[in-house]
Amino acid sequence: MRALWLEDRTLRLREDLPVPRPAAGEALIRVRRAGICNTDLEMVRGYYPFTGILGHEFVGVVEEGPRELMGQRVVGEINVSCGTCPACERGHRTHCEKREVLGIRGRNGAFTEYLTLPVVNLHPVPEEIGIDAATFAEPLAAALRIQEQVSIAAEDRVLVVGSGKLGRLIAQTLALTGCRLEIVGRRRQELSLPNAEILKVELAEVLLPGSFDIAVECTGNREGFEIARRALRPRGRLVIKSTYAGRLELDVSALVVDEIQLIGSRCGPMAPALRLLAAGQIEVETLIGARFPLDQALLAMEHAHRPGSLKVLLEVGNASKQEW
Amino acid sequence: MRALWLEDRTLRLREDLPVPRPAAGEALIRVRRAGICNTDLEMVRGYYPFTGILGHEFVGVVEEGPRELMGQRVVGEINVSCGTCPACERGHRTHCEKREVLGIRGRNGAFTEYLTLPVVNLHPVPEEIGIDAATFAEPLAAALRIQEQVSIAAEDRVLVVGSGKLGRLIAQTLALTGCRLEIVGRRRQELSLPNAEILKVELAEVLLPGSFDIAVECTGNREGFEIARRALRPRGRLVIKSTYAGRLELDVSALVVDEIQLIGSRCGPMAPALRLLAAGQIEVETLIGARFPLDQALLAMEHAHRPGSLKVLLEVGNASKQEW
Repeated sequence: MRALWLEDRTLRLREDLPVPRPAAGEALIRVRRAGICNTDLEMVRGYYPFTGILGHEFVGVVEEGPRELMGQRVVGEINVSCGTCPACERGHRTHCEKREVLGIRGRNGAFTEYLTLPVVNLHPVPEEIGIDAATFAEPLAAALRIQEQVSIAAEDRVLVVGSGKLGRLIAQTLALTGCRLEIVGRRRQELSLPNAEILKVELAEVLLPGSFDIAVECTGNREGFEIARRALRPRGRLVIKSTYAGRLELDVSALVVDEIQLIGSRCGPMAPALRLLAAGQIEVETLIGARFPLDQALLAMEHAHRPGSLKVLLEVGNASKQEW
Repeated sequence: MRALWLEDRTLRLREDLPVPRPAAGEALIRVRRAGICNTDLEMVRGYYPFTGILGHEFVGVVEEGPRELMGQRVVGEINVSCGTCPACERGHRTHCEKREVLGIRGRNGAFTEYLTLPVVNLHPVPEEIGIDAATFAEPLAAALRIQEQVSIAAEDRVLVVGSGKLGRLIAQTLALTGCRLEIVGRRRQELSLPNAEILKVELAEVLLPGSFDIAVECTGNREGFEIARRALRPRGRLVIKSTYAGRLELDVSALVVDEIQLIGSRCGPMAPALRLLAAGQIEVETLIGARFPLDQALLAMEHAHRPGSLKVLLEVGNASKQEW
């Protein structure tokens, strides 16, 4: 089968890979669509050493597995956990000490024709959700993780730093809390979101420093981090959603004096993500920047690398009407 | 009156200062004992630009003020707040935008014979509390701030990094939660605390990395921060109690992947601190390293600068039996 393969920080399209065999408790999934995430770009830059098929955002169809899932459209939790380590016993399965992570750590990913995942990781996609929207289930779950970590009061002023695909997805989930939301980005983009009336793109300079209760950093760069930090009032909370290449310098004394909290935030719950998508509460069409067939995955990655690029989707095979 | 004066990062003992006049709503307090805090040392290194009398940990006697406080022993909250700014309105008076801070920002401090503070900042000292113990009310309040910010479950493994005066004070407060507590320090010191059975000093090397639920950083140096960070399990919480000179480099991606929380922590509640001292729950004698009269304040500061120095107390005047 064909796949986008990462090795020694180099990507290539391979055609010589065998269709994987599902292990006990696993299902074989035919990938239909996959999304390129900034983490994929960071992986190529060497953020985490990985050799294998890249990609972790996907929607596919079960071809081998339990009878009740056969032919079903599914999305999947990307962390494959052992179930017995201290983190798993605590219920923190995304932090399993022995975890494999789809397309990131020890397990081939989704930029291919077939993948395997444990059946417990799979979530059937309700029929109300289109194939494009389903591809956003994984990043949407990551966005919803924020509200598992930080209670957001309706009166809170919340700033999303970064108006790219992740920032705009997160902004949509936060807007549903009724909080007073602003989003700041480098580019003054059209934000045609259902809740656009409470979203505005401002330049960093017009932000009133020290006035936000919560800031969510979605840029993955130093400048974005500094904007988020400056925006916070004392005792404010800074949620960090992006991985950074390299280290960041921090004025720790200022964190102490202002009693700021920094909160790292990673993967989130898939079931609520699917519920919001099924209810039509999250608009994804305006987050899509381009589509490429799997054959052009290298081109797709190049496109995703461009500054300001929105979500790049990889289309795998042709979706028949029966399936979608 | 005499006072230890800080100007241009230089300390000198002055004898030419007038006794301050209390403004409306303020009391005049005759200082009897004061403690040297690491923040005082950082102030001399230029951590915060300040010209005036240093010192913010004290116990004294009210000489002018409301009738019911006259002659009373008092300790004082060090933040003088406006009561009307957004932070004050939110109830976060220690973060008042216009605050003065005793001996730190815009207000003469406690290494002298007399100081003034608003009456609302004062707390009478119960008679069960000796003069030495009362001097610890302010740092003890700061230690108790941790439990306002972080809920500590009895089953939590908690690490205090730093076995100096602050670390040992904090360790005592945390031990009262019943948590599984360890303390790590550079020097293998005798910890003759009432709860010594659950405290041990270990070398950093023997710590099991990734196994603590909560770490409290009390060293104010990069090495201590790294030990605290490494000690935490995924989703662990790192409370930062110390101010740092300069900036710290941070692997932000690791914070995101492990979903670590960093929590800056500053001043805390005085009333609970006094209750614990009155109940004899906090042992302070073993935290005291040296005593100097105010005349030898420069020597006292030098002593406090020494690595491993415990709390240095300044004795002002002679406490009569009636007062203490």
